[in-house]
Amino acid sequence: MPGWVNGAPGEQLSVRDRGLAYGDGLFETIAVRGGRIPLLARHLARLAEGCRRLAIPLDLALMDSELQAFAGQLGEGVAKLIVTRGEGQRGYAPPQPCQPLRILQAAPLPQYPAAHAEQGVRLFPCVTRLAEQPLLAGLKHLNRLEQVLARAEWQDAEHAEGLMCDASGRVIEGVYSNLFLLRGGALLTADLSRCGVAGVMRAELLEQARALGVPVEVRDIGHDELLAADEVFLCNSLYGVWPVRALQAQHWPVGPLTRKLQTIVRDLLDI
Amino acid sequence: MPGWVNGAPGEQLSVRDRGLAYGDGLFETIAVRGGRIPLLARHLARLAEGCRRLAIPLDLALMDSELQAFAGQLGEGVAKLIVTRGEGQRGYAPPQPCQPLRILQAAPLPQYPAAHAEQGVRLFPCVTRLAEQPLLAGLKHLNRLEQVLARAEWQDAEHAEGLMCDASGRVIEGVYSNLFLLRGGALLTADLSRCGVAGVMRAELLEQARALGVPVEVRDIGHDELLAADEVFLCNSLYGVWPVRALQAQHWPVGPLTRKLQTIVRDLLDI
Repeated sequence: MPGWVNGAPGEQLSVRDRGLAYGDGLFETIAVRGGRIPLLARHLARLAEGCRRLAIPLDLALMDSELQAFAGQLGEGVAKLIVTRGEGQRGYAPPQPCQPLRILQAAPLPQYPAAHAEQGVRLFPCVTRLAEQPLLAGLKHLNRLEQVLARAEWQDAEHAEGLMCDASGRVIEGVYSNLFLLRGGALLTADLSRCGVAGVMRAELLEQARALGVPVEVRDIGHDELLAADEVFLCNSLYGVWPVRALQAQHWPVGPLTRKLQTIVRDLLDI
Repeated sequence: MPGWVNGAPGEQLSVRDRGLAYGDGLFETIAVRGGRIPLLARHLARLAEGCRRLAIPLDLALMDSELQAFAGQLGEGVAKLIVTRGEGQRGYAPPQPCQPLRILQAAPLPQYPAAHAEQGVRLFPCVTRLAEQPLLAGLKHLNRLEQVLARAEWQDAEHAEGLMCDASGRVIEGVYSNLFLLRGGALLTADLSRCGVAGVMRAELLEQARALGVPVEVRDIGHDELLAADEVFLCNSLYGVWPVRALQAQHWPVGPLTRKLQTIVRDLLDI
């Protein structure tokens, strides 16, 4: 299925677009099942928050209807949405007024080995650290060279994901996932106010865990705490939940809370 | 004059290009005078270093000849060169093999008020800090949201540039310039091993100052050192050298070393 640019079929954009020049924009990677978007409200809320913080005047109602129409045509697959600040003259100053660009691309649903979800995955310990930038932290913006460098650190199929820490060594997330751990009965995930991407599945899981009565803590997590965890798992909006079974010499069992949340999310994503 | 994409006339690129998706690429902003590029060797050296550090397999000889041919057609103006890792499938993993994309765009030479070079400029004190990321520091890569946020902090014409510091408050650079200061007879500019863009004019000025017998120090610079400086100036490859005359309540005279370097660079840039 061809992509859309500003609502019309298209696969090209101008070389003068600020999305290319500066990474001046945002994106969403969206699972589409049966023509519908399971986490639609969360994707739109994160996009709205990103536009607010970057001062990109996107027509959110138009984006919503366009995205749903695209999903309806796609049926089954991944819709990748990119919003940029649009074209500009030379120089960093945002154009006034600016005309944001809306891009939608279709891709097949990724085919991961079933073992990732069943037996869990091994994490690669990425050397690339996440820089601390509170003004951009949490956003799914287009400045993703850190993830590119981190993902290039391993090629083997043994590692399904990589662990990313910040410059101080705090445990933050995976390269394309968020990370949770269970310790002493509480579910922990990293505070993302200095770096990291606040995933929509992370938000969903925080709410699901609270609904189950599990104490939830969003805070700084040291590497020692990760190693001492009872359960560790990853999440994103495409694969749902993957247990983490190993990081270097450390091993974790696939625990009951991981399985419970995985099942809830499977129903939600219809996978 | 229309731009070139991979050596042929064009102004469009694929929405699947990783330059858009992740800012996975580099750029150069290049002054062209009389069909020639005054700082050609420095631009190419920086681009080569960026490609090496990001592992982008650019054909540098081809890029060189293409850039010079473009400059020959442009005559007078600014050539903006963008190199990306090219198209990829979904996901951060760099495609193997990858086919880098070469983009050249033409723009007129910027028309700055003559007073900027003559009387000097006032710096806006940007609140946006530069995050520390040694793996990307110094590179002119396409992840430039920090500069977009910083440049959006002021709209008045009173401030020609903004001062950017790192998260620890060290003085680093302007939003689109490098910064030098003269103190106790030595010329200082920030060490850019944690953040910042290593400008080609900065490299040229370091060499010119050494040739004049001026002691040069590339190191961390505190905000107090900036305030106590005898001379302060900015540089980039388009405008050459601008004296800095003020930052908030602080004022500096336009000093003799600033004028001497400005004259040398004017001859070099033919401005």
